[in-house]
Amino acid sequence: MIQVAILGATGYTGAELLRLVSQHPYMQVSHACAHSHAGKKVNDVLPNMHGELAQLTLASVDDPIPENIELVFIALPHGAAAKYVARALDANIRVVDLSADFRHPNLKNYQDAYGQPHPYPKLLDKSVYGLSEIAKDDLQNAHLVANPGCYPTSVLLPLVPLLRAGLVDSQNIIIDSKSGTSGAGRGAQLGSLFCEVNESLKAYGLPRHRHSWEMEEWAQNYGNQDVHIRFTPHLIPMTRGMLSTLHLRGNNTQLWHKTLSDYYQDSLFVKVYEHGRLPAVNAVNRSNRCDIGLQVLSDSEVTIVSCIDNLMKGAAGQAIQNANIMLGLNESLGLSQIAVWP
Amino acid sequence: MIQVAILGATGYTGAELLRLVSQHPYMQVSHACAHSHAGKKVNDVLPNMHGELAQLTLASVDDPIPENIELVFIALPHGAAAKYVARALDANIRVVDLSADFRHPNLKNYQDAYGQPHPYPKLLDKSVYGLSEIAKDDLQNAHLVANPGCYPTSVLLPLVPLLRAGLVDSQNIIIDSKSGTSGAGRGAQLGSLFCEVNESLKAYGLPRHRHSWEMEEWAQNYGNQDVHIRFTPHLIPMTRGMLSTLHLRGNNTQLWHKTLSDYYQDSLFVKVYEHGRLPAVNAVNRSNRCDIGLQVLSDSEVTIVSCIDNLMKGAAGQAIQNANIMLGLNESLGLSQIAVWP
Amino acid sequence: MIQVAILGATGYTGAELLRLVSQHPYMQVSHACAHSHAGKKVNDVLPNMHGELAQLTLASVDDPIPENIELVFIALPHGAAAKYVARALDANIRVVDLSADFRHPNLKNYQDAYGQPHPYPKLLDKSVYGLSEIAKDDLQNAHLVANPGCYPTSVLLPLVPLLRAGLVDSQNIIIDSKSGTSGAGRGAQLGSLFCEVNESLKAYGLPRHRHSWEMEEWAQNYGNQDVHIRFTPHLIPMTRGMLSTLHLRGNNTQLWHKTLSDYYQDSLFVKVYEHGRLPAVNAVNRSNRCDIGLQVLSDSEVTIVSCIDNLMKGAAGQAIQNANIMLGLNESLGLSQIAVWP
Amino acid sequence: MIQVAILGATGYTGAELLRLVSQHPYMQVSHACAHSHAGKKVNDVLPNMHGELAQLTLASVDDPIPENIELVFIALPHGAAAKYVARALDANIRVVDLSADFRHPNLKNYQDAYGQPHPYPKLLDKSVYGLSEIAKDDLQNAHLVANPGCYPTSVLLPLVPLLRAGLVDSQNIIIDSKSGTSGAGRGAQLGSLFCEVNESLKAYGLPRHRHSWEMEEWAQNYGNQDVHIRFTPHLIPMTRGMLSTLHLRGNNTQLWHKTLSDYYQDSLFVKVYEHGRLPAVNAVNRSNRCDIGLQVLSDSEVTIVSCIDNLMKGAAGQAIQNANIMLGLNESLGLSQIAVWP
Repeated sequence: MIQVAILGATGYTGAELLRLVSQHPYMQVSHACAHSHAGKKVNDVLPNMHGELAQLTLASVDDPIPENIELVFIALPHGAAAKYVARALDANIRVVDLSADFRHPNLKNYQDAYGQPHPYPKLLDKSVYGLSEIAKDDLQNAHLVANPGCYPTSVLLPLVPLLRAGLVDSQNIIIDSKSGTSGAGRGAQLGSLFCEVNESLKAYGLPRHRHSWEMEEWAQNYGNQDVHIRFTPHLIPMTRGMLSTLHLRGNNTQLWHKTLSDYYQDSLFVKVYEHGRLPAVNAVNRSNRCDIGLQVLSDSEVTIVSCIDNLMKGAAGQAIQNANIMLGLNESLGLSQIAVWP
Repeated sequence: MIQVAILGATGYTGAELLRLVSQHPYMQVSHACAHSHAGKKVNDVLPNMHGELAQLTLASVDDPIPENIELVFIALPHGAAAKYVARALDANIRVVDLSADFRHPNLKNYQDAYGQPHPYPKLLDKSVYGLSEIAKDDLQNAHLVANPGCYPTSVLLPLVPLLRAGLVDSQNIIIDSKSGTSGAGRGAQLGSLFCEVNESLKAYGLPRHRHSWEMEEWAQNYGNQDVHIRFTPHLIPMTRGMLSTLHLRGNNTQLWHKTLSDYYQDSLFVKVYEHGRLPAVNAVNRSNRCDIGLQVLSDSEVTIVSCIDNLMKGAAGQAIQNANIMLGLNESLGLSQIAVWP
Repeated sequence: MIQVAILGATGYTGAELLRLVSQHPYMQVSHACAHSHAGKKVNDVLPNMHGELAQLTLASVDDPIPENIELVFIALPHGAAAKYVARALDANIRVVDLSADFRHPNLKNYQDAYGQPHPYPKLLDKSVYGLSEIAKDDLQNAHLVANPGCYPTSVLLPLVPLLRAGLVDSQNIIIDSKSGTSGAGRGAQLGSLFCEVNESLKAYGLPRHRHSWEMEEWAQNYGNQDVHIRFTPHLIPMTRGMLSTLHLRGNNTQLWHKTLSDYYQDSLFVKVYEHGRLPAVNAVNRSNRCDIGLQVLSDSEVTIVSCIDNLMKGAAGQAIQNANIMLGLNESLGLSQIAVWP
Repeated sequence: MIQVAILGATGYTGAELLRLVSQHPYMQVSHACAHSHAGKKVNDVLPNMHGELAQLTLASVDDPIPENIELVFIALPHGAAAKYVARALDANIRVVDLSADFRHPNLKNYQDAYGQPHPYPKLLDKSVYGLSEIAKDDLQNAHLVANPGCYPTSVLLPLVPLLRAGLVDSQNIIIDSKSGTSGAGRGAQLGSLFCEVNESLKAYGLPRHRHSWEMEEWAQNYGNQDVHIRFTPHLIPMTRGMLSTLHLRGNNTQLWHKTLSDYYQDSLFVKVYEHGRLPAVNAVNRSNRCDIGLQVLSDSEVTIVSCIDNLMKGAAGQAIQNANIMLGLNESLGLSQIAVWP
């Protein structure tokens, strides 16, 4: 068994990492840390746990990582994560960092998006941006993977193949995304209360949400062209799930569906629907899938809808997928292609 | 008391009309009809009712309308409604028709949107499209009001003043709307089941939803210019409420906020927020308000968010408002400007 | 217009009081206070507000109450409320106190339930426990009304008439109650987060919830017999609403339905269903009703279900009803008997 | 691989069976039937599916079962299931029947609960009632397992050990259960619509729900004493999950917690909490667990709360567990002990 550590194990992403590793045939969590719950048992903070893992005592994030650990998942806030990434790399431990700290080769973007200078710019070179389906080759021997944000994952998976094919008007990309509330984290804030979220809906993050820099930078890097994305996220009264509606313009729109289908025909987790059929969030619930539907509106207009589970393909699921690839394992180990219904 | 009739009283819109009339100081429901529940008491079908109204026996929609009725609200499906509109007008009864049957002066749009020829084209002349704030003058002596659809209401209220001011690039209008599930009606269909809607989200109605013809036609009529709208609706796991995100382009974007604020400064129900503050659906829950927020992104890009309660300002509430105007009453009688919280 | 003040105007109960007074024909809020939001406008904290009231500046709870105020609603936590009750009574202002501070003539019960000695025991004499339908006579000239808790309201309304008729085995009363999440208040706590409440359900408050003392004390006072109640509350993933299931034993069970029906036959807000029909929470949503259904199981067993909106008949609605009675007004002014549907 | 068939594969229970078998190391679905969707692909009816299984063509329930099938799961309505059970047994195929048809050795109970005579009384002898933890020995060589109902599972698991220990007053058992809406099935009925269920709550099934006969019969059989259960189920606005509150009386209440803890100390799926801690539904979400909490109220009163996922331990999960036991496999294969969070 490969021993892994999780830093930030009691938030929603950390809990999902714990569950996924527990059902992985070759990985085992032997070190789990939490900022505010150190000293408690996992089960005291996460009632969903059971068995041995539930009885594990949570360490402090500042405790040294045991020597037998081969890989660490870091699910800490941006800014806070970088220090622990550096420590783990120093100790020759592989890292999947779920924070934003190593997602931006372009330092100015990091600074603009997060309002602070990057704490460890020298490490950026070592980082591979882990959009699994696009970056598989680079991931295979990576020591540091920057796990993508949930919104960028839902947007880049459908967008990149079309950009690469030169089909998209890259200056006219309008993305309207909708996310479940678990994306806001497990912090006790007024805006995340049941009675404030339930039976409501709102846009947020305007004029510019942090993830817009990330999706723009990687659309450019992967698509090899200048890209302008206008991105508006919305908060939806559901626990999990994310749907992005891409309002696109471009050329040869009759080729778009085949381009996407071909690109992902061998993918285990990206599913391109037949033309005109659009995915709903419950099709991917608790799976690692990204489902993509496409509707041609005219010879220059196409609407694309993509769905992910924000904590799975949008966070912990993709992190496991990336860890599998880094370690030379089958990328689907421990992950489900079939969603839970209902 | 003005005696009113409601045709289609047991669907979600009909139930809301019953409730609103019951709290109106000058109106009284003395005739309520339902297609499939004729002969039952109102309370047998609508457990929320109480008092005298709850004991009213539901008539058939084909029963003659009693002579003392001065105004009839028609909450029947499109196609079915037109016949009853014609009968009521023949009997010299004023009509607020909540169906789509008299919303399209342009007959071709009706046919394209609803896939059938219009059953009573001659009556179209008599109809006033009832977007209350824009059409107030025409409504004052109207005998037939075509009550707007929910999506067009949420879109046209912010859009029309800006079109009239010549600020919007009218060929580049992208609308991404999100609606609560009551908009799908009270029919027992698989897609409306709790377990299919809850914890999910989907786009629907592509390539072209019926309401896109309506909003385009009236954007043109009111805005006095050719308009192309790209409209994508989504179904949200909440009972009521609607949020439309307008991704707009245009000129002089620094003027947009003042243009909208000035336009609605005396409005009782349309509330324009300060620049950069965006409404959430729960701000308008069970009120007749339309709340509008606006964020300038650049000198050519503006995002607007508008919220309504789809059964209030999007249906029954605006119908009452229109009835008030038709009858020369204060337009806010029986309606709430304050939403329910939480 | 009767000028009223609201202390604690920005919690969920306070917000409902603001809304209800705003639609009351003879009352007006001219003073609203909040602990943590003093100095802000009402609308900054409550986006649902509109019009003049939205622009009111929130005072501090410690600010003096203006001289023109005739009645004050106090929606502060227990313990904190008593001081402001005392001040208002000193200033000869009538009080409806929505906290628990003056609900217990039996001081020991207050101490046992709230874990602290009563701060103003001398004022208890002046207080009338405001279960409107039962206490109407005493309320008419009251200066201080202790507005009942939500759970006790839902339990006592069906229970008291049956106790008075000597039909209930008063030592074998088992109450299983279910409440919407707004009952937990607007505080930012982990347990009230959307992602913790949604798609879940739990019992809480065992071994003995505070409201069990209240319902037991008043079942005894009103029922004139010794009463033992075993009470278990549950938290439900809905914003509003409360359903109590009373698992009762007793005698002459064939008389129970008529006893209840007769007791409430002239009530504006308590609705007893025909035998065997049971209410759902959505029948009373946003109304001031209490709906009661009853099923005889055998000659010694009866199950009763009662439903209220916890913020209406369970808090703010009953407070308005009590204020109406205190002031000699029609008890239903400003309140709805018809619920919102859906 | 053991080839299995699923009859009734497109309802909520059938969908869960498909998913669970797909992740089972030694089972494979090679025959899936549906009443109304025969001829379609699995994926046309269940968007959550992916991979080969998604492309399987649904057979008719009346098609012959292929010869290579060793075990069939029957997820058809009561009454309809029995015929297919008989056919499978004739063909020497093992059966896990998730309907109620073979749960009642006492034929009168079947008739009283389901209002019809039993169609195959002779087969009842062969049936083992599959409450896995209690019936493990009998299950090991069973050819027909009657998979328990969801409510009886949630009630019997905590109740049986206490009855066997002689601790419970078996004539005074009051059960108040709360179920998610998936328990009502995937039929398109008014009462299951999102807008009717959401933000509401109701009791149903009174005076006597079908499952009350089942839990009473098996409490007697397993507990070896006469038992009277007063059972009231409620419908909760959540997709999955079930919580039963057992309001019990008895003796030696200080022994109850240890009795339960000892009974399940080696159980993989039943988790008894420390005294006074009570489970919430989200602790068991999508797992096969039953979590049990217990609160002693006095020397004769104990409240117990048990939680299951109604489609897992309450249906498909327990069916897989039973199949594992029947086939001599580890009972936890293909099942999760860790719940999904959030």
